[in-house]
Formats: sequence, structure tokens, C-alpha cells
Amino acid sequence: MTSLDTGVKIVRNVGRFTIGDGSVSGVADLVNSQRTKDSPNAVYLIDEFFENSRNVLDSLGMIAGDAKHFIKTANEPTTQGIDELVSTLHLSGHNHPATIVGIGGGITLDTAKAVANLLTNGGKAADYQGWDLVRVPGVHKIGVPTISGTGAEATRTCVMTNLETGLKLGMNSDYTVFDHIILDPGLTSTVPRNQYFYTGMDAYIHCIEALDGSYRNAIGDAYSRETVNLCRNIFLSSDMMTDARRSDLMVASYLGGCAIATSYVGIIHPFSAALSVVFGMHHCVANCVVLNAMSEFYPEAHSEFRKMIELQKVELPSGVCANLTDDLRQALIAATIKHEKPLTNALGTEFRATLTDARIISLFEKM
Amino acid sequence: MTSLDTGVKIVRNVGRFTIGDGSVSGVADLVNSQRTKDSPNAVYLIDEFFENSRNVLDSLGMIAGDAKHFIKTANEPTTQGIDELVSTLHLSGHNHPATIVGIGGGITLDTAKAVANLLTNGGKAADYQGWDLVRVPGVHKIGVPTISGTGAEATRTCVMTNLETGLKLGMNSDYTVFDHIILDPGLTSTVPRNQYFYTGMDAYIHCIEALDGSYRNAIGDAYSRETVNLCRNIFLSSDMMTDARRSDLMVASYLGGCAIATSYVGIIHPFSAALSVVFGMHHCVANCVVLNAMSEFYPEAHSEFRKMIELQKVELPSGVCANLTDDLRQALIAATIKHEKPLTNALGTEFRATLTDARIISLFEKM
Repeated sequence: MTSLDTGVKIVRNVGRFTIGDGSVSGVADLVNSQRTKDSPNAVYLIDEFFENSRNVLDSLGMIAGDAKHFIKTANEPTTQGIDELVSTLHLSGHNHPATIVGIGGGITLDTAKAVANLLTNGGKAADYQGWDLVRVPGVHKIGVPTISGTGAEATRTCVMTNLETGLKLGMNSDYTVFDHIILDPGLTSTVPRNQYFYTGMDAYIHCIEALDGSYRNAIGDAYSRETVNLCRNIFLSSDMMTDARRSDLMVASYLGGCAIATSYVGIIHPFSAALSVVFGMHHCVANCVVLNAMSEFYPEAHSEFRKMIELQKVELPSGVCANLTDDLRQALIAATIKHEKPLTNALGTEFRATLTDARIISLFEKM
Repeated sequence: MTSLDTGVKIVRNVGRFTIGDGSVSGVADLVNSQRTKDSPNAVYLIDEFFENSRNVLDSLGMIAGDAKHFIKTANEPTTQGIDELVSTLHLSGHNHPATIVGIGGGITLDTAKAVANLLTNGGKAADYQGWDLVRVPGVHKIGVPTISGTGAEATRTCVMTNLETGLKLGMNSDYTVFDHIILDPGLTSTVPRNQYFYTGMDAYIHCIEALDGSYRNAIGDAYSRETVNLCRNIFLSSDMMTDARRSDLMVASYLGGCAIATSYVGIIHPFSAALSVVFGMHHCVANCVVLNAMSEFYPEAHSEFRKMIELQKVELPSGVCANLTDDLRQALIAATIKHEKPLTNALGTEFRATLTDARIISLFEKM
């Protein structure tokens, strides 16, 4: 396959980043530097995982009048959930906060990005699902990832599902990019091992897909190569969660996020999206379940993935597509093939010649 | 040697970048988007190399009232030269331009950065040589590199020499970082081969030094590794100047520049700085001359460098330190050992136990 231009030309970077163990202690100063007489208060959106972590909560520099909300992570963000949170902030008088601090995984970071855009742009979250629909800059926002892999700290989107229409699409906008992110590997020491692995593999998988595709970009390729390189060092080591490995995975997540801006995914993400839409499976574990069944399309990555999963003693859900009904089969096929750009990236415009209905279902049945 | 923390914590990124062949055509729109009723005019600082390149000059969107200055590149920037240029802009009424566009190599890009800071901060260039002395943001600025390697498009400094005091030091400041850079590999197709090689090797050399040092940072290492990887692919290929290689070198230069923010150089840069200070040799060719004599300290990089230089049929100055006088010897030693941080990074605090006067001179005599 010849190499095609991704068509992506202008890329907005995260404004600044702070890096290093203990750097979360800088949140207080950062927030204070944004407080003004007119906007003295900040909004903190924090992964519910930290609800009882006094040492983390106490280090954030919260003062009287700041809003603090714990973000539930059982389900990925919905436009309805975002709208509710914005209403709550309006009711508590946080219409123009000094800054919004998002502390958590992809769900919490994406929520912070969406809320920041809505507070200045008005309207409903669903109004901005798409590309470059956000009209004015959002509230200043600070992202503090506490798990590594999705790259949400670096990207220009915030994935949300509209429960009414079923549309899963983010606010793709330069205004969605964080002004400041804090990369403190100390925050990831308490992540459960399975979750740490699944999430970390999101970076590995989207970069493997990008480097295997036909739409290419020199800087996207460079970010992807180093992300894959870091992931190999981490997940093929004896312990993926040492201090140095967690630090490296935080870097891989950020660089992998930077890669997303100028690249496309391949076959894994469309199948993974179908598992999320049809079975409500979370994005990162769904990616792993799919790659585990993709030896035909990604033989090297599959074999490397199997080594990683055995080395790190990670458990993977199995039999997720056992006992499919006809309706489920049709739903899975439809939810997979709608992702035309990634499938074209991997297989060309005639991707349905390869991915027939029968082939798609036989792949799902291996999961 | 154990790994030490670089101490660098907060890093400002370039605001946005545009990437791809032909992307220089986007300069006009970018500049126009910055023009306002109060500041309708832009300042263009252009490498003298393009003085007769009508196709480049015509693509930049210059309008009546814009200032255009061609930057001489025989000598690297001086604080006196920057001050003169700022005075000229004041005299022509360009006190508050809409944006400053720097188009050229490191000399031109650094000049644009320094001028942008001075127009808003007042005073003289020498007032801001140091760290975080710039008080307020500079004029909006756009960088368009036309040669790849120094990373000037990505860094928070702009190197200048004060001819009165001999001090060679930049304005190290978050405000020195470009708001937008344009990475168009089409612009590097006319670079003379020797110059292309010397400049590209700047990225390779500072990343090799960083990865060999004891002060380390996870993201600095990641940027450095991919920069070295790209440089190997480029300079160990049969032709370093194909379209794809020039595109890759532009990426390597940018990522190498990103690496500088969180890393330190080693032994090569101090020796190279001494060649620049004592003999006025340009930075990039001086780096190459030094690495060529550094087989004792960087055996692998030296051997790789020799392969590259032979493959690409590049000529390197030789005998640059033939017939040294005692005064020149003392000047070279002093100009080398003043770079304590890089030398400590490479050899530890007792670096003078290794780098005795006699050893330093014997290294220079190999150049």
C-alpha cells in the first residue's frame, strides 16, 4: 500500500506540562495563579477513586468557595451527564471559574474538557459533538492524569455518548486542549494492575494501528514509534509498575496522545467501539479483548501482546461474544463497519471485501 | 553513574504547529488572522538566503506597511545587532506589530524571538540574557525553519553574544517560545549539503550527549531517543536529502528541540562553544569538528558519525587547532571548562580530574 497524507496540518499542543514524581504538589500554585478578584474560585473534578485519599485531596490547594465534584467512572461520559454537571455548577455560582482542574483517568479528564467548553460557549454538550463547533475558548483548564494510556491529557477531543441518539463523538476542537497538564507518576502507584495494563495498552494499540496504516504523517509516526518503544520496555519488563516504568508509561500516554492528532487507528478500534456500543464494555479493556483475537491482521503485535499479558499476569475477559443472537450480530457488524476512515486506513477503500459479515462475526466469536 | 533528576519541571510547548510539504503557504492566513485595526502590520525577518527567492517571498502574504528585513547569517546573533534591529523597527513605526514572522535557520529564528520580547519589554537585549528575566509576553510570533537541526523552532531560548562583555547567553523564558511554527520540508530542498549535514547533526549530537549523561528526565529521554532514531535513518541512508528524509529531519529537529527543555548536553557542546568563542566557528560545524575528535568519550557515536560523514560525502574542516599559541590554549581551556553543568552531567563534579589542561589541549589538537 502506498503512503497517503493524513490531511492533518495544524496541531495545537498542550500549553505547558509539569513532569516528575511529586509534581501534583504544584497544582495549588497553578490554580492560585489563575484566581482573580472577579473569578476567585476554581472547579475541581476528581475521579471518585480519590474520594477518601486525604493526601491527594489536601495537596490540591482547594479554598472555601471552590467547587469539588467526584466523577463516577462506572460509565464513560454522556452528553446528559455533562449537561447535568454544568447545571450544577451554574446553580452553585461557578459560571466563570478561575480554572477547572480535572484529576483522574480519561473519563474525568474528558469531563473537565467538555465542562470547560460549555461554561463559556453555552448550550448543550450535544451541540458540540463534531469537528470545530466550539466557538470561543473554554475556561482555563488543568489536567492531572492518574492513570496512563488513553492520551486524553494531550488530545483535542473529549469523547461523550449522547444517550438519546446513541452518537458517541467528542468535541474535536483546539479549544478542548488542556492549558496545563501535570504528569506525576506518583499518582499511578495505586492503580489496580489489570486496569493499569488495559489502559496502558490503549497507547500501544493506537500507535501500532497508526504505524500499520496507509495514512501517514512524519511527526505522527515519530510519536507513535517512541510510544511503542516505551510500551515494549514497560510491558516486556519483569514488573510494569516500578517507579521508572510508571514514569515511562506516563510519557508514553502523553506522546501517544500527541500521535493521535496526526494519525488514524486501524481495525482494532472499530471492533473495540462495537464492543463498547453493543455490550457497554469500557474502551481500554475492549481494545485488549479485540487485539487478543486479531492475530490474522496484526500478527506481530498480537504475539507481543500475548507475551506482555503473560509476563504481567493480567486477566482478560473471555467469551464476551458467546451466544450471539442475530440481532446482536447485526448490531456488532453495523457498529464496526461505520468506522470507515480507520478501516480504509488499514485495508483500503474496499475493506468490505476483506471484512465480510461472516469474517467480522467469526472474529467477534474469538473474543 | 546513578541517574539524577534534571530539576526541570515545567515546560512550555510551542502553541501550534503546521506540518507538511507546502505548508508555508499557510503563513499568509496565519498572519492575516493576527492583523487588527490597531496593529494592521506584521514584521518579517527573513534569512538573506531567500533575498531573491520570489516564490518564497511572494507566498508570505506581505502587504503595504509590513516591515521586511533580511537577516545576515555570516555571524551568529549579537545583543548589539538585536538592539539595532529593534531601533530600526521603532523608527519605521513597527512598535506593536500584529505578529513577527521569522523565516530561516537558527540565527533568524533566534533573532525573531529576541526582537519579539524586546518590543514589548523595552530595554536592551543584554538586559534579558539569563533565566526568566523577560517580564511580559512578547509580540505574537511565527517561526518557519528553513534548515533542520538546531531545534530553535521549539526552544525557550535565543542565543546571543554580547560583543562588549563576550557573554554568549540567550533569553531563557517561556515567553521566548513561538506561538506557531510551520514545518515545511519543501523549504529545505535548496540547503547546501554540507550545511544540511552539520545542522542536522546538532540534533543528533545534543540528544546523544543527553542520553549519555547522568541528569535524566523521562520525557527528555523519549524525545532524545526518537530524535537519534530519526537521525540514524536519515544520515545512514543512501541520500539524506530525499523528500522523506528532509521531512524526517524537520521532525527530528523539532523533537530534539523539545528534548533540550528537559535535558543537558555533555562534553561535545562545551568544546564546540570554545571553538565558537575563540575562533568564531559556527555552532553546528563546530559540533561536528568536536565529535570527530571525541572517540575516547563517545566511541559509538563517533564511529556512527564517521559512517554518516562518509556515506553522505560531507567535508569537514580539519587542522582548526593547528599552531596554537599559549594564549589560544588558555582561551580554549577557559571557554571549555566554564560549562560546568554539561561537564558534570557527562563526567561528574570532579570533571577536571579527567579533563586536565593537557587532555583538553590534546583533544583540540586532534580537531
